[in-house]
Amino acid sequence: MSQANDSAPVYGVHSEVGTLRKVMVCAPGLAHTRLTPTNNDDLLFDDLLWVTNAKRDHYDFMIKMRERGVEVVEMHELLAETVAIPEAKAWLLDRKVTRNSVGLGLIDDTRAFLESLPPKPLADFLIGGVSVVDVPERFATSDYLELVREAHGVTEYLLPPLPNTLYTRDTTCWIYGGVTLNPMYWPVRREETLLTSAIYRFHPSFANADIQVWWGDPDQNFGRSTVEGGDVMPVGNGVVLIGMSERTSRQGISQVAQALFANGAAERVIVAAMPKLRSAMHLDTVFTFADRDLVTLYRPIMDQVHTISLRPSDNADGLEATLEKDPFCDVVAEALNFKKLRVIETGGDHYASERAQWDSGNNLVALSPGVVVAYDRNTWTNTELRKAGVEVITIVGAELGRGRGGGHCMTCPLIRDAVDF
Amino acid sequence: MSQANDSAPVYGVHSEVGTLRKVMVCAPGLAHTRLTPTNNDDLLFDDLLWVTNAKRDHYDFMIKMRERGVEVVEMHELLAETVAIPEAKAWLLDRKVTRNSVGLGLIDDTRAFLESLPPKPLADFLIGGVSVVDVPERFATSDYLELVREAHGVTEYLLPPLPNTLYTRDTTCWIYGGVTLNPMYWPVRREETLLTSAIYRFHPSFANADIQVWWGDPDQNFGRSTVEGGDVMPVGNGVVLIGMSERTSRQGISQVAQALFANGAAERVIVAAMPKLRSAMHLDTVFTFADRDLVTLYRPIMDQVHTISLRPSDNADGLEATLEKDPFCDVVAEALNFKKLRVIETGGDHYASERAQWDSGNNLVALSPGVVVAYDRNTWTNTELRKAGVEVITIVGAELGRGRGGGHCMTCPLIRDAVDF
Amino acid sequence: MSQANDSAPVYGVHSEVGTLRKVMVCAPGLAHTRLTPTNNDDLLFDDLLWVTNAKRDHYDFMIKMRERGVEVVEMHELLAETVAIPEAKAWLLDRKVTRNSVGLGLIDDTRAFLESLPPKPLADFLIGGVSVVDVPERFATSDYLELVREAHGVTEYLLPPLPNTLYTRDTTCWIYGGVTLNPMYWPVRREETLLTSAIYRFHPSFANADIQVWWGDPDQNFGRSTVEGGDVMPVGNGVVLIGMSERTSRQGISQVAQALFANGAAERVIVAAMPKLRSAMHLDTVFTFADRDLVTLYRPIMDQVHTISLRPSDNADGLEATLEKDPFCDVVAEALNFKKLRVIETGGDHYASERAQWDSGNNLVALSPGVVVAYDRNTWTNTELRKAGVEVITIVGAELGRGRGGGHCMTCPLIRDAVDF
Amino acid sequence: MSQANDSAPVYGVHSEVGTLRKVMVCAPGLAHTRLTPTNNDDLLFDDLLWVTNAKRDHYDFMIKMRERGVEVVEMHELLAETVAIPEAKAWLLDRKVTRNSVGLGLIDDTRAFLESLPPKPLADFLIGGVSVVDVPERFATSDYLELVREAHGVTEYLLPPLPNTLYTRDTTCWIYGGVTLNPMYWPVRREETLLTSAIYRFHPSFANADIQVWWGDPDQNFGRSTVEGGDVMPVGNGVVLIGMSERTSRQGISQVAQALFANGAAERVIVAAMPKLRSAMHLDTVFTFADRDLVTLYRPIMDQVHTISLRPSDNADGLEATLEKDPFCDVVAEALNFKKLRVIETGGDHYASERAQWDSGNNLVALSPGVVVAYDRNTWTNTELRKAGVEVITIVGAELGRGRGGGHCMTCPLIRDAVDF
Repeated sequence: MSQANDSAPVYGVHSEVGTLRKVMVCAPGLAHTRLTPTNNDDLLFDDLLWVTNAKRDHYDFMIKMRERGVEVVEMHELLAETVAIPEAKAWLLDRKVTRNSVGLGLIDDTRAFLESLPPKPLADFLIGGVSVVDVPERFATSDYLELVREAHGVTEYLLPPLPNTLYTRDTTCWIYGGVTLNPMYWPVRREETLLTSAIYRFHPSFANADIQVWWGDPDQNFGRSTVEGGDVMPVGNGVVLIGMSERTSRQGISQVAQALFANGAAERVIVAAMPKLRSAMHLDTVFTFADRDLVTLYRPIMDQVHTISLRPSDNADGLEATLEKDPFCDVVAEALNFKKLRVIETGGDHYASERAQWDSGNNLVALSPGVVVAYDRNTWTNTELRKAGVEVITIVGAELGRGRGGGHCMTCPLIRDAVDF
Repeated sequence: MSQANDSAPVYGVHSEVGTLRKVMVCAPGLAHTRLTPTNNDDLLFDDLLWVTNAKRDHYDFMIKMRERGVEVVEMHELLAETVAIPEAKAWLLDRKVTRNSVGLGLIDDTRAFLESLPPKPLADFLIGGVSVVDVPERFATSDYLELVREAHGVTEYLLPPLPNTLYTRDTTCWIYGGVTLNPMYWPVRREETLLTSAIYRFHPSFANADIQVWWGDPDQNFGRSTVEGGDVMPVGNGVVLIGMSERTSRQGISQVAQALFANGAAERVIVAAMPKLRSAMHLDTVFTFADRDLVTLYRPIMDQVHTISLRPSDNADGLEATLEKDPFCDVVAEALNFKKLRVIETGGDHYASERAQWDSGNNLVALSPGVVVAYDRNTWTNTELRKAGVEVITIVGAELGRGRGGGHCMTCPLIRDAVDF
Repeated sequence: MSQANDSAPVYGVHSEVGTLRKVMVCAPGLAHTRLTPTNNDDLLFDDLLWVTNAKRDHYDFMIKMRERGVEVVEMHELLAETVAIPEAKAWLLDRKVTRNSVGLGLIDDTRAFLESLPPKPLADFLIGGVSVVDVPERFATSDYLELVREAHGVTEYLLPPLPNTLYTRDTTCWIYGGVTLNPMYWPVRREETLLTSAIYRFHPSFANADIQVWWGDPDQNFGRSTVEGGDVMPVGNGVVLIGMSERTSRQGISQVAQALFANGAAERVIVAAMPKLRSAMHLDTVFTFADRDLVTLYRPIMDQVHTISLRPSDNADGLEATLEKDPFCDVVAEALNFKKLRVIETGGDHYASERAQWDSGNNLVALSPGVVVAYDRNTWTNTELRKAGVEVITIVGAELGRGRGGGHCMTCPLIRDAVDF
Repeated sequence: MSQANDSAPVYGVHSEVGTLRKVMVCAPGLAHTRLTPTNNDDLLFDDLLWVTNAKRDHYDFMIKMRERGVEVVEMHELLAETVAIPEAKAWLLDRKVTRNSVGLGLIDDTRAFLESLPPKPLADFLIGGVSVVDVPERFATSDYLELVREAHGVTEYLLPPLPNTLYTRDTTCWIYGGVTLNPMYWPVRREETLLTSAIYRFHPSFANADIQVWWGDPDQNFGRSTVEGGDVMPVGNGVVLIGMSERTSRQGISQVAQALFANGAAERVIVAAMPKLRSAMHLDTVFTFADRDLVTLYRPIMDQVHTISLRPSDNADGLEATLEKDPFCDVVAEALNFKKLRVIETGGDHYASERAQWDSGNNLVALSPGVVVAYDRNTWTNTELRKAGVEVITIVGAELGRGRGGGHCMTCPLIRDAVDF
């Protein structure tokens, strides 16, 4: 994607805790008003959220990052600015409104409706989905739209709602100086990557930057190779941690590692092979950094992790693997030149820590070394972090947390400084 | 239970919307801190709640009722005052600490521990449950307690946590001048009734009143006869509505009706035979009163209801049944001498109304005719009610609503006036 | 239950593998024709069975035992002979047709219908359940029966179907010279115990024997104390093995042990504290005896077992507990005076053994030392047993096995010899 | 795919009940030995099957068709003959052993292992899957294979097992003179289509025929467009019935219809829009033909069907749709020039018919008009069919039926005559 522009920002994420300069989030919206008790499981949400309050709490999250000097960009807005560019709009609609997605007989109606929309509502529908009842009558070129409404009702979608865009962490991830465009595990999340890719490709603030794509392509089918950003942590010192989880597969990790090694972008990938559980869907749901050498983790899961190191090799695949004997944290410490990592476990007794992990107690996002954002409800873990000298900025998790994601999940860092080790 | 005392209050609930004089609630507490992702389904909660905030929101609920002149009594406090009476304490512990509940080998230790507690913590443990790790070492008369801890861990309970006490509506219900002590459907709720029964039997404010028990007995096993208060509505005019649901069985309803008729306490029971669904677990999750002739309901469920009238008879069972041809609301209207009920449906489009029903949008509790308490999050339904002239007092549902119950579920009216029809 | 009669058989089970003299089974029948895809999970069956073939295969099972000299009695027949006795019929119907089970308004109709039946069909309905459509019109004393049919349909039961009677092992269990009448874990199995109790109480072949009931009473509610026979093994030498499982609770075990010790019936109970899993619902689903010192077991489960020994004591509860340090099999071996048990694991590779355990591969019933009945489908495990010198008689498991039970589950030994150790 | 060869068979399916000349089936095998209680749900099987007996019963099915003059070809054999052709083997392995499926680091080892195999075992592994423990040590070019075994164990697959190949009906379907290569709904079935496509492309008996592919391509990703053959019935008279189900989407149907119309292969597609239920996963699970005008169906599902007709049009999409007012069967009758269809409902009372539908009672495959193969267990429905003059040939369903499919699901007709209407 293009040559560098002198005035363009230089995107890149060089650590997990270095000063966060620019970050992409996605506010709750139309997609979340589509969640009902009958579809929330399919859409990966454990309960409904009150969208109005979720919006308020998410705004508060953005404000608190902005007050700390972070440039926060919001995905609906970025997407609206993107589809305001005719070429970008066509690129996206060509991929979204197809015989496979919309079905024959409704392509023209759907396309005409979407073409008629100003950029902001268009972006809203691209993220929030288009039900057959959303298309006004005047766009119907035949009786077919009416027929589909009668036979299927309000839950028949022409474009699917994408409520998990809330978790911008997962769809794309910046690893040092480049980015991956991730093939997601669950079919209901696969179309998210296309939207972010369009933003990176066409939005002025990205199109003029010299963006290096390490791996991934929304136009391509990666089969069993899946990677989600919640599993990926470019911790610095040439090291990347990747959780091998329900959602990030061995096949996907090996390709990301190969691409990073081939580009000289990393020297070692440390894989945390995790048990496949909903409560531990990504590495960042049980393990995140709060400071250079300080992590919070949920021991009952992390104690089950196998650790594997991938390193560049001259062989055909460009990488070789070693099964580590030491515990994950010790391997990470050694890779970062620490004797030991300081560890804050999920706080409280058995019940409290199991509850806190579930409520994203370990899912911190750092704004700078020792400064993190966390949900208010995990008071015990937050107190332990504070006792360890961490500044914990709290946000309200009552609604935002119901999809099982916290500050780390809800942020896609675009520019973050390195730290020294 | 004894003869009346002149100064004692006269308990009784004579309508669904008449002025509420006295009500029993149960604050969130220890039992809810025991909820974890691995046990919440078994304990009938869809998600964890932040107990601290749930307490705050529940306190706000009590305050708002008190400011309206309602006498609000709280179950932990009532129970503490009850177990302060030696006879009551013995009556309860004899039933709670048994070979069937605690198991041989731990009865003495458990009893000694509970006997040692002041009334308030004792009440907390009776509602919140006693885990094997809660019993201090000094009460162990043998190694067995230690063995059970080693073999089973923190989740082995000597007394089970009862988080559903939050919904005081269900365990006992006042129908006109008397009360039923309900045999609950789910085993995990069965022990709740014992606690409330102890309060009614021994607590000074009840023991001195002339309490009439229509039906039920916590010492007795009712098999397939189950009744839960969320299905029972003494609407006035000698009529009682009862939902026949997953949780309230035909067998239970027939016995309650017989008892009411035999005592001359009611002239007609109108049964709403509902589909068996989690979203419609009780009648009051899809249908409640906001004013004398004004109800809110969720049509997709209520349209599936069969309506049956039970009336006194000279036959052996003392009752006879008729299958009604008219819709439920029309039958109710006729029984209350209205031409029609005014109906406010769950507000919003398909998604919004399905969401609102789930979030207890129809689960109103009236403080007086046209004055109700509702969750804040159901803004659309609340607006519709306000347009119909109802005063809607809102409380925060972010945490309290996660067990699928609202103001109606969380209240056990003890004294409520009749209304005219 | 009465004084001994010289000519009456002496019931008692004195080992797991001694010569089996008399056994009670229950053939598939009406109850299994009620199983449908919408209720089979609730009734604890994983799939439907073809009842005709299940009957054939079960008959073959009986034949093979009879050919070996075992007296096989069948529960439908025993029950028919029992209800042919007027006193027994009344005792049972008084307990089955009640306001709690049938509901007011239908008691007279239901009772009249059942009273009108000859013993054999009456026994069939007691086991198979009575739906509202089973009662002929002429027994309707009011319109209520018709109303219930209209409002509820064919799946509304007056008496519930009891398809799990197929597993006669669980409901009562003979331990040396006496029997327990077990309070079952799942509500859908609780009524089974009443039927077996009636047989023991009234059927001539039992009523005249001096039957010693160690523990249990179908008229009593045991709350959290549950025991199922699949967890209980009177292995001989004064030792009883009991699995502590999803279905057999610590509370229940302690009471059985106390009763055995108080009656001098056993000197030691060895408890296998098992993980709570469907695949390991009872001890006999993962561990049974094929010969005096030879067991078959499923290692992935048995390796997770904690072992506890209960022994008589002078303390108030009459028993004391010790957590064993050695593996379960070693503790059992020592208790039976063996150096080691010979162990045949579920056969085949990882897949095959997991499959075989699921298909009751470890659920053997011995007819005499070294002679067992097993399902045909577990060829690998059967071959391993044969190589160890065991005679394996196979029966067809295609239908019978779908409720997750084999020969051990389907037999309630009534008379079995001791073996020497 | 190539020009016609005079001696090659002319593939094509011109009715649902005309004389069946050639059919493809797939015997149970290695893939089914991989099914365990922990993976069977993910692999869409309700219970384990005894593979040895399933093979026997499936062989009996083949025999019975062959005795009637049907040429039966078996997929393992076809695939073995296909991979015996070097070009075909390379084509397949290039698609199966990729960085996305196998992952970097194991491609060479896996490919070398597969290349080393003779055609028959190679075909077995392609259908049965390759676990990391299946690859002999000598093919390991690095330690990585060993590492993956240690970290992941026996359930880590290099190629996934494809047990649903048993249901050859679904993966490809012949519609009059051509075939569709179907994009399957569930990810675990997607790779099946590749194997069948390789057979059609390279196997001598197909490669020399002039095969017309209407739609579908295993190298292409169809997103939300899914079609499964169990929903597709080329009934004759230019009409195709297609079930719109959980597994066959509106988007897929519209593309198939367009392709058929564009090629002049059909004049009308009648869509049965079904409720989305496991019991009704395909149209052929609730509706099949036994004779020209005789169908068997399960009314509780078929009564919920909406019927839509698609016909060719001059518009851009080449088709237009009409919502039919008459019931599905009447629309079908009219399209086939019958006054009425004769209908045999799933036999027996409420329980029996629900049981029979579940056990594939409606899933008949016709060998010629009025001659069908059915499972033995559905005796009632089979009797009703026989009374209507149908010859019902029975096969054993004890094992084969556990994946919820009968004779219709297990057959992919390759050549079937037309019938007159």
